[in-house]
Amino acid sequence: MSTLVELIPGNSLITATPEEGRQLAIKLSRLIIKVTQPDAAIREKLRPVYAEDAAMLIAIGQTVAIEFATIAAANNFWK
Amino acid sequence: MSTLVELIPGNSLITATPEEGRQLAIKLSRLIIKVTQPDAAIREKLRPVYAEDAAMLIAIGQTVAIEFATIAAANNFWK
Amino acid sequence: MSTLVELIPGNSLITATPEEGRQLAIKLSRLIIKVTQPDAAIREKLRPVYAEDAAMLIAIGQTVAIEFATIAAANNFWK
Amino acid sequence: MSTLVELIPGNSLITATPEEGRQLAIKLSRLIIKVTQPDAAIREKLRPVYAEDAAMLIAIGQTVAIEFATIAAANNFWK
Amino acid sequence: MSTLVELIPGNSLITATPEEGRQLAIKLSRLIIKVTQPDAAIREKLRPVYAEDAAMLIAIGQTVAIEFATIAAANNFWK
Amino acid sequence: MSTLVELIPGNSLITATPEEGRQLAIKLSRLIIKVTQPDAAIREKLRPVYAEDAAMLIAIGQTVAIEFATIAAANNFWK
Repeated sequence: MSTLVELIPGNSLITATPEEGRQLAIKLSRLIIKVTQPDAAIREKLRPVYAEDAAMLIAIGQTVAIEFATIAAANNFWK
Repeated sequence: MSTLVELIPGNSLITATPEEGRQLAIKLSRLIIKVTQPDAAIREKLRPVYAEDAAMLIAIGQTVAIEFATIAAANNFWK
Repeated sequence: MSTLVELIPGNSLITATPEEGRQLAIKLSRLIIKVTQPDAAIREKLRPVYAEDAAMLIAIGQTVAIEFATIAAANNFWK
Repeated sequence: MSTLVELIPGNSLITATPEEGRQLAIKLSRLIIKVTQPDAAIREKLRPVYAEDAAMLIAIGQTVAIEFATIAAANNFWK
Repeated sequence: MSTLVELIPGNSLITATPEEGRQLAIKLSRLIIKVTQPDAAIREKLRPVYAEDAAMLIAIGQTVAIEFATIAAANNFWK
Repeated sequence: MSTLVELIPGNSLITATPEEGRQLAIKLSRLIIKVTQPDAAIREKLRPVYAEDAAMLIAIGQTVAIEFATIAAANNFWK
């Protein structure tokens, strides 16, 4: 694992709003892919593969949903 | 990531009723697909692909279920 | 999204018994498929596809399990 | 949905032991398949399909794990 | 279901350490496969199938992660 | 299962920061693959398979997300 990739921007799960929490969930899920495939050229090549594949788009949605569940709980759901 | 897409309508997980929470869960899951594939023409092309595919419909159901779990907890399950 | 489909019958996650909670979990998962594919004829055509496919039956089971987890927690596990 | 199938034997998530909770998790997951595919002959035909397929066996394991999480929480983890 | 297979060794989710909790998670996930496919010869035949398949190894990881989540919560995360 | 593989480095889910928690989540998910496929040569051969496959990268992301949820809860979300 490249330890050069920052996995959690700002090193915190706490966000000001649900919207920012959602953005963080997307970032977290993308950074795992970045650390697993550090070659930017390959990642770029894979982008149209998943972005035009319905099943993969759904799977990305599942991943973000799981990340967001953790972030939302960490923020006590911004209540 | 396009920051122009609003990821959580109303910027809140709180809804008046479970029914509205369910609608929000569907919206959240669709907005992740929108932000991942910002091209409306491609998304439109993918719609019949997943809407007529049993496995993808089931996967969409899983995604909504995960999103809803978070929303339901945020609303203390509307008890 | 068709707003004509009722996503949560009775607009509540609270049920009298675990058995009814389980039935609700099944209904919730089916209503997401209904709202995603509003054409009853297509849904009817897809029924034998998933009902005779072991992998899809398992995936349906996962979806119901996730929905039920939320319903069970909402009911404090009927304790 | 056939309402003739009992979805939760004993209509309770409470069990005396973790072992019984695990057995209940397996039963719950199987009963969802039974209610989705009520034809016993078809289910029987599908058994060797999933029981000799590594990917499906893993997926069954995931389903049981999710069901068990709910049952374990309902029993306060049998502490 | 063969009731001869012990599904939870020691009939408890409580372990002395996180490491032992992780080992238990692996065991629980394997025992579900054992009870679903009781024929040891078939399980043995399937081993190289999943152990040399990247997608199945990832899926096994997901299953263990879900089982571990339950065990960790049962142990109050060994705090 | 080889009991020679350490499944949780440091035998603890507690980390100083969310960033370290995320790194731990990645390690935990990789160690399950290591214990399931102990042959380093085969694992090395599988690396380019999943690292250049969009669907598998997404699935890895889901696994890490699930592991991280447990670690984050164990650390009271580092609040």
